[in-house]
Amino acid sequence: VDLVERMLAGDVRALARLITYIESRHPELPQLMEKAYSHGGEAHIIGITGPPGAGKSTLVDKMTMHFREQGKRVGIVAIDPSSPFSGGALLGDRIRMSQHASDDGVFIRSLGTRGSHGGLSLATREVVRLLNSAGFDIIVVETVGVGQTELDIMELADSTVVVFVPESGDTVQTMKAGLTEIADIFVVNKSDREGASIMYRELQLMIEMANAKPWTPRLLSTVASKNEGVSDLVEALAEHQSFLSESDIGQKKRRAGNLVEFIEILTGEIGDRIRDESAQDGLAELIEQVKSGKTNPYLAALTVLRDPVLLRDLFAFDGKKKDSD
Amino acid sequence: VDLVERMLAGDVRALARLITYIESRHPELPQLMEKAYSHGGEAHIIGITGPPGAGKSTLVDKMTMHFREQGKRVGIVAIDPSSPFSGGALLGDRIRMSQHASDDGVFIRSLGTRGSHGGLSLATREVVRLLNSAGFDIIVVETVGVGQTELDIMELADSTVVVFVPESGDTVQTMKAGLTEIADIFVVNKSDREGASIMYRELQLMIEMANAKPWTPRLLSTVASKNEGVSDLVEALAEHQSFLSESDIGQKKRRAGNLVEFIEILTGEIGDRIRDESAQDGLAELIEQVKSGKTNPYLAALTVLRDPVLLRDLFAFDGKKKDSD
Repeated sequence: VDLVERMLAGDVRALARLITYIESRHPELPQLMEKAYSHGGEAHIIGITGPPGAGKSTLVDKMTMHFREQGKRVGIVAIDPSSPFSGGALLGDRIRMSQHASDDGVFIRSLGTRGSHGGLSLATREVVRLLNSAGFDIIVVETVGVGQTELDIMELADSTVVVFVPESGDTVQTMKAGLTEIADIFVVNKSDREGASIMYRELQLMIEMANAKPWTPRLLSTVASKNEGVSDLVEALAEHQSFLSESDIGQKKRRAGNLVEFIEILTGEIGDRIRDESAQDGLAELIEQVKSGKTNPYLAALTVLRDPVLLRDLFAFDGKKKDSD
Repeated sequence: VDLVERMLAGDVRALARLITYIESRHPELPQLMEKAYSHGGEAHIIGITGPPGAGKSTLVDKMTMHFREQGKRVGIVAIDPSSPFSGGALLGDRIRMSQHASDDGVFIRSLGTRGSHGGLSLATREVVRLLNSAGFDIIVVETVGVGQTELDIMELADSTVVVFVPESGDTVQTMKAGLTEIADIFVVNKSDREGASIMYRELQLMIEMANAKPWTPRLLSTVASKNEGVSDLVEALAEHQSFLSESDIGQKKRRAGNLVEFIEILTGEIGDRIRDESAQDGLAELIEQVKSGKTNPYLAALTVLRDPVLLRDLFAFDGKKKDSD
């Protein structure tokens, strides 16, 4: 808990330690997070996604420069899917960010999925909450968008930017309508390359067809490596933030996000504790029957759902098991 | 429930309907599945994964021919990640399978992720269970391995085959040790192409380095389109199945799988019902506080975990809400 107070006071090492606790599912996490969460923040949470090689990291790098010029503190969470077939290029990309390494107004952290059971979405939400409590003005969540996990993660953003390059034509065709559902802003990066205008028109057509209301996704061209178009992107993000606060969309998003987070924490904790063999008494017997195949998982789940009191022995948050009920 | 009896009696349309119920999270699913699950099966569950373009569908097609010659009934579940950035080539691939379309010993079904909240892993387990109950001897689960979701899915297989092509060198380099953890059998498909022997040696070296015990992953070359090497693969799968039944590894896998399934059903149902606004009374008030930000999600989750009786009003499985507690 001391750690949380240090984080709230601006201690970056305490923040980093807490994130490590999140990654390792430290047993004291619930208490620590409960304390951290009681200090909300007003950060603008920006999601950036797109296929590998779209130049997302460079774009985030340049956006960060702009935000820093505005005097804003920036927290960056890079999601590395560590997926066997998608590659793990993010670490290399991050090295390019090192120009911000000595700037204590910028905090960068990678989160990986290795070993987690669908827990990445929750872990990301938790890290974003911490950064928010720690007083960052802008929080950027960058993912390589290759799967459902990454899309789920984008749900936590206030504003989502989807980045393409001129070569992404097939990807756009494959996604079609799905794209306009998640993107608030489209970016054609590396737009000095051949095919950029074709990609731009393709996205423009798609946006027109989708006819999204009340917010029509913005479409921008950038050359992040040359810092071209990045200030327009920063401006479009500010516009979207204003739109969110002026309409009820922003509030709806936050409400939905709060609910998802509650469900993920609740069900994640139940799952973790069953997996950790914290179950005792009736629940432990039921679980053994499930494992051995004597009871089928559905019947066992129904048994617990009809009598959730069975879950009670899972939760001895002081670290000791309950010795009676 | 009638539907389940028809499925158990071999009615393929009833099976297809039940799978649709799984995809749409039909409200009667718990009761239907509980009934279906009480009829276990002894199928060999085979997972096939690998990067897009590795020829997995053709390989599955040819494997299916071999299994059919052995008189075995084959159920195939193709997982289509429907992921924005990975493409949806599976449907086209499936058309090639149409030679089995008139064979009632083969059942093929695609499962997509669109709209599901991390529920694909559970849905796949449920479909595999159904196919098992319906008496299929071989169940093949084919995924395009691009994310954590797909790897989680592979956990349900008794035997996992990872398929590469000569061009997959970078992918193998990126994954390294992770690969030997999931693969029981490696296949270099399209091995008549240039670079096949380099890929083969690379995988061979990786397998030797990993020094996995007690099962050393097998390494095979195939040209699925010409049916070359496929009978060796079918044989290696039979070997691995024997290994599983002779060691305690198979039993351990099943026990772990049963537990994961129980956790996914339990926590999935809790999440679904909270999302569906089934909560009443105390829980409904708590949820409103979470949504509005008056209570933070962690504190709310802890409140429920400490007093799981709060969950009781979520579960009125006869479709009616509980009117008292």
